Amino acid sequence: MDDATTFLNADPFSKELGIKLVTSSPGEATLQLDITDKHLNSHGTVHGGVIFSLADVAFAVASNTSGIPAVAINTNITYMKAASSGTLIAEAKEFSSNPKLGSYIVEVYDQERQKIAVFQGLAYRRSPRRQ
Amino acid sequence: MDDATTFLNADPFSKELGIKLVTSSPGEATLQLDITDKHLNSHGTVHGGVIFSLADVAFAVASNTSGIPAVAINTNITYMKAASSGTLIAEAKEFSSNPKLGSYIVEVYDQERQKIAVFQGLAYRRSPRRQ
Amino acid sequence: MDDATTFLNADPFSKELGIKLVTSSPGEATLQLDITDKHLNSHGTVHGGVIFSLADVAFAVASNTSGIPAVAINTNITYMKAASSGTLIAEAKEFSSNPKLGSYIVEVYDQERQKIAVFQGLAYRRSPRRQ
Amino acid sequence: MDDATTFLNADPFSKELGIKLVTSSPGEATLQLDITDKHLNSHGTVHGGVIFSLADVAFAVASNTSGIPAVAINTNITYMKAASSGTLIAEAKEFSSNPKLGSYIVEVYDQERQKIAVFQGLAYRRSPRRQ
Repeated sequence: MDDATTFLNADPFSKELGIKLVTSSPGEATLQLDITDKHLNSHGTVHGGVIFSLADVAFAVASNTSGIPAVAINTNITYMKAASSGTLIAEAKEFSSNPKLGSYIVEVYDQERQKIAVFQGLAYRRSPRRQ
Repeated sequence: MDDATTFLNADPFSKELGIKLVTSSPGEATLQLDITDKHLNSHGTVHGGVIFSLADVAFAVASNTSGIPAVAINTNITYMKAASSGTLIAEAKEFSSNPKLGSYIVEVYDQERQKIAVFQGLAYRRSPRRQ
Repeated sequence: MDDATTFLNADPFSKELGIKLVTSSPGEATLQLDITDKHLNSHGTVHGGVIFSLADVAFAVASNTSGIPAVAINTNITYMKAASSGTLIAEAKEFSSNPKLGSYIVEVYDQERQKIAVFQGLAYRRSPRRQ
Repeated sequence: MDDATTFLNADPFSKELGIKLVTSSPGEATLQLDITDKHLNSHGTVHGGVIFSLADVAFAVASNTSGIPAVAINTNITYMKAASSGTLIAEAKEFSSNPKLGSYIVEVYDQERQKIAVFQGLAYRRSPRRQ
C-alpha cells in the first residue's frame, strides 16, 4: 500500500465523505467523490463544504507526498458551477515548494469535465531542525 | 421557526456534520459543532474540511438573512490552531453588502475561546431583475 | 493597436509602475516589469504590492479580452520567494468563465524562471441585460 | 520616531504611493493615502493594486509591531466598492498570532466611511531559534 493510500486510510473525515484516491505522484494527487444525498445543501446542489473538502484532501495528499508532514495554513476556493449528481474529481498540483512552505493549485471537475471550482492551498512543513 | 432554522433544516450536509444554529440576526450568525471522531483527520485533530464547513454554513446563514438567495462564490480560510475535542463555534458577520455581492468575515473559536481559524466569504445574490 | 495594448495604455497606475504587455490572447495574458529601486520594500526586496499589482494587471488584461468589461471582485496571492532585481513576468490564464463570473490563475516568475508568487482572481462581468 | 514610522520610512514603494501612517499600536495599524491621478485604472477609479498595497502596508505595519520581523505569505482581498477621489483609510487588526504565524484583517474605507475592501493577511515570522 503506497503512502497516499495509507494517509487517506488514516483520515476518518475523508472516509465519512466517501473520498477516494485515484492517483498520486510527487507533488500531485487526483481524488474523487461520488455524490449522494448527504452531500447536498439547501438548494439541492453539492454543499460548498463538500467541494472544499474534496479539494482540501487532494491538496493534503499532494503536499504530503514529500515525506515531510505538512499542515494546511491557508486555502482559498472559487466556485464556478453547481453540481448535483455523479462524480466529482479533484486534481492537485504543486506550484512551488521550499523547506518551510508548499503552494498548490487544485481544480475540481464533474464527470463531464465541467469546471466546478478552483482552489489554492498553502501548507507549512514542520521540518526537523538541523543539528 | 425562524428563517435561519428553516434554512439549516433544509441543508442535509449541515445535519450530517452536526452543525447547529446558536443565534442569527440580519447579517450575522453564530453556529456550533460538537467534535466527534468522524470529524478528525489523520493527525487526530479536526479536519480542515470540517472547520471550513462550519465557517461556511455560518457564512451561508448570515448571507441569507436578507431574504434574497445568495450563493458562495469565493471563500478564504486561515487556520491558526488545531482543535481535537469539545465544541467549535463560528461567528459570521457582514462586512459589506450591495444588491449583487455580500462580503462576510467568520471567526472560529474552540470552547475555551481560543482562535482556531478566520474565514472570508463572498456571496453573489441572484436578485430579481427589474421589470 | 490591439485591445490589450489599448487597455493597458489607458491605465495610469500600470504606467506608473512600468508594467508592460508581452503577449495576450483570449483568456490569457503575459506581462512584465523591470525592477527598480522604487519597487522595493523595507527589506530591499520587491514590495508585495508590486508583485500583486503585476499579477492583478495580467488578470485584468486576461479577463477583459472577451470584450465584456470585467471588474475584479476577489483576489488571493501566495508569495513563495523574494525577488530583488531583474525582470518579473506574470502569466495569467482563465480557469473558467460564465456570463457573470470569470476565474483566473496568474503565476509570477523572475527572469531565471524561479516561482515568485501564485495568484487567483475572480472577476465580475456587468454583462448587458437581454431585452 | 516610533518603530512603525521607522518601518514605513524605510519602505520606498510606500513612499512612492504616498502611504502615510495615522496610528499604530501592538497588533494594529491605521494608514491612509490621498488619491491622485497616478493611482487610477482604466475605468478612472482607484486601481486594485493601490487599494491592495494600502491594505498590505497596514498589514505589514501591524504584523511588525511585535519586534520579530514578519513577511507576508498569503493575502486575500475582496473589493466591494470603487473609489475615485479623496482619501482612503486602511485599518489593520490582528486576528491571532503564534510564534510562527500571524493572521490579520484589514478594512479599507473612503473618507465618508464607505466600505471599499476587506483584506485578510497571513505573515510568517522568522523567529530566532532557541539556543
